[in-house]
Amino acid sequence: MTQANYGRRLAETRQRMASAELDALLIASQYNRRYLTGFTPTDGDITESSGLALVTMSGLYLITGTFSISGLEHEIEPSGAELLLTDKTTAAAVLAQAAKDQGFRRLGFEKDWMSYGRYERLRKALDEEVEMIPSDDLAEAVRVVKDEAEIAAIRHAGEVADAAFAQLITELRPGMTERQIALRLEMLMREGGATEPSFPTIVACGPGGALPHWVPSDREAREGEPLLIDFGARVDGYCSDITRTFVLGEPDAKLVEVYHIVRAAQDAAEQALAAGAKRGRDVDAAARKVIADAGYGEQFMHGVGHGLGMAVHELPAATYLKTTEPEEDEQLAKIEGISVGMMITVEPGIYIPGWGGVRLEDFVLVRDGGIEILCQRNPEDILRVPVR
Amino acid sequence: MTQANYGRRLAETRQRMASAELDALLIASQYNRRYLTGFTPTDGDITESSGLALVTMSGLYLITGTFSISGLEHEIEPSGAELLLTDKTTAAAVLAQAAKDQGFRRLGFEKDWMSYGRYERLRKALDEEVEMIPSDDLAEAVRVVKDEAEIAAIRHAGEVADAAFAQLITELRPGMTERQIALRLEMLMREGGATEPSFPTIVACGPGGALPHWVPSDREAREGEPLLIDFGARVDGYCSDITRTFVLGEPDAKLVEVYHIVRAAQDAAEQALAAGAKRGRDVDAAARKVIADAGYGEQFMHGVGHGLGMAVHELPAATYLKTTEPEEDEQLAKIEGISVGMMITVEPGIYIPGWGGVRLEDFVLVRDGGIEILCQRNPEDILRVPVR
Repeated sequence: MTQANYGRRLAETRQRMASAELDALLIASQYNRRYLTGFTPTDGDITESSGLALVTMSGLYLITGTFSISGLEHEIEPSGAELLLTDKTTAAAVLAQAAKDQGFRRLGFEKDWMSYGRYERLRKALDEEVEMIPSDDLAEAVRVVKDEAEIAAIRHAGEVADAAFAQLITELRPGMTERQIALRLEMLMREGGATEPSFPTIVACGPGGALPHWVPSDREAREGEPLLIDFGARVDGYCSDITRTFVLGEPDAKLVEVYHIVRAAQDAAEQALAAGAKRGRDVDAAARKVIADAGYGEQFMHGVGHGLGMAVHELPAATYLKTTEPEEDEQLAKIEGISVGMMITVEPGIYIPGWGGVRLEDFVLVRDGGIEILCQRNPEDILRVPVR
Repeated sequence: MTQANYGRRLAETRQRMASAELDALLIASQYNRRYLTGFTPTDGDITESSGLALVTMSGLYLITGTFSISGLEHEIEPSGAELLLTDKTTAAAVLAQAAKDQGFRRLGFEKDWMSYGRYERLRKALDEEVEMIPSDDLAEAVRVVKDEAEIAAIRHAGEVADAAFAQLITELRPGMTERQIALRLEMLMREGGATEPSFPTIVACGPGGALPHWVPSDREAREGEPLLIDFGARVDGYCSDITRTFVLGEPDAKLVEVYHIVRAAQDAAEQALAAGAKRGRDVDAAARKVIADAGYGEQFMHGVGHGLGMAVHELPAATYLKTTEPEEDEQLAKIEGISVGMMITVEPGIYIPGWGGVRLEDFVLVRDGGIEILCQRNPEDILRVPVR
């Protein structure tokens, strides 16, 4: 990323801060922290953070310890972030000092990325005259529209995943277990340049595929069953996310039927995106209608897609309203806006208890006047992997 | 886990709730949720939760959707957790209804595991008469003392990691890269039964080892340099955490010297634990003194250890005071208590910029009148792996 990338990101974040009448914004999300400063360390649980970023109207700061930044100082050079070290003190004390030095009074914080406990500790350390304002994810609202450099990174993450899958299917045999298949695929992605999978790989041979949260087991792959693999590679901090459903040998009539419905639903959602849909719910509805019309409406119980970038799930949301309460509607409206430069997964599915599932997932870049699919698609007819 | 395990855990959690004058406790941590209910799904980022647990003085509830629990209903049978489904509504609405039905008024929530945004949404949904009280991690305070079943699970996770390492060193050659070594070790752990590594494996050949946050690179392993590997296996939801520093071929005098200091520091910390240390700072100080006396005090800039269980970092903390402020002291005192049944890592290190690092890490069970080390130890003299 260049100085220009960081400059634009910062300027747009400050515009959003100004609209929210903030004169400073505290960044707790590891993705936004990296997006604005370039600092790459990842955080574990919410209780573990390797640093906070602080944006003011004239400054950009990274609050962290020598322990975390040591050897990585070059990462923050292009962004120009200034280090505020916590070596002999706490992040709360450093923030309080910055508030005094910079004179900011209305400090926004990322309310969905900061624990209540941390909020409480910061609140206690700050002078009373500094207001802490729970903010929406303002930096993510900028991050959701990708730079060309980010698009290239995500494209590459897709290529690594596609290549690994292409190799995997040449090695598949009936009798391999879900765990073995997942491990082999992750291995191939790592060998191809992934630092890690974007998320724990899902491999479901047969019935497990009916459960969207399925964890690979010792169940063996058998001929004729739906074989569902949901996977992605993280490369240079960016994710791909792909689902393929295919069959070893020949599918039966039901699998062919269900596959075609899901494929048609995916086409419908992608057409809605290509035609310029501006709300996630409309993309979702396009896929949902195809599946409902075919009589499987109850068997598609998740949203059709989500944004993709540094995080495997980010804005925008492409889903439906669970309740008709106005609060729900308002909440969804805040997170579903679609515009040019966004990266979105399109992943309808049909899940049948005892039988299995078919989910087909691409990820798609919204272009001016159309879309670009950044991974190989599941073919029009279900992929039949010859049994050797 | 048996009904009896869950019964004891719940009873002890309720005792702590009573001390804090709570009549209900909302569980947001995925570890505590599993610990109390048996529900195994894992959460991603803080913005993604597969459910909340709710403990009242007479009930135990799991607030989740059919989407998440489907196929896993058997997991919560031994704990007797009752399902409160969010399929057609929100977790906040379900919680508000439970408050009405159960009549609780003082609802604690895990303040370090719940985002401010989620707190805000729950607060809005609840009647005014229900007080939301930011609570310490009361369930973790129970969880930190392990059941025999948990000890067996952690022991097993240690065996899987030890066996993978034993195999790895038979395959190591100069010229293998850090990434290749990390990938091979993770593969061996997975083949040995791990669902995943406890955390991203650290492999540092030479200089990278000076940075505790090192991410495996394409740097090749060379003879004579310190080779540092920090790794662990997650098996059945429990973690191991081990660090080995060794050498391909023969070490030079400096590596031998540094290794012996760190080994002596580790011995000192383990002796302090075996002698019945009751505070993490005292275990830390025992190791720190050895390293400081040898002139490397500035090169050991992290705490000596942490608790280990479902989470790779949990209570107790074994570290030192960064500042002399009374607030810091009070904060540390809350999280450093050591008692029988706790599982703690002991991992002193010396980090020398440009040269590398030596860290030696065991994990240790505190027994009545002593300790048990649950993994193989780094040997008294540095392990020399013959160059083939």
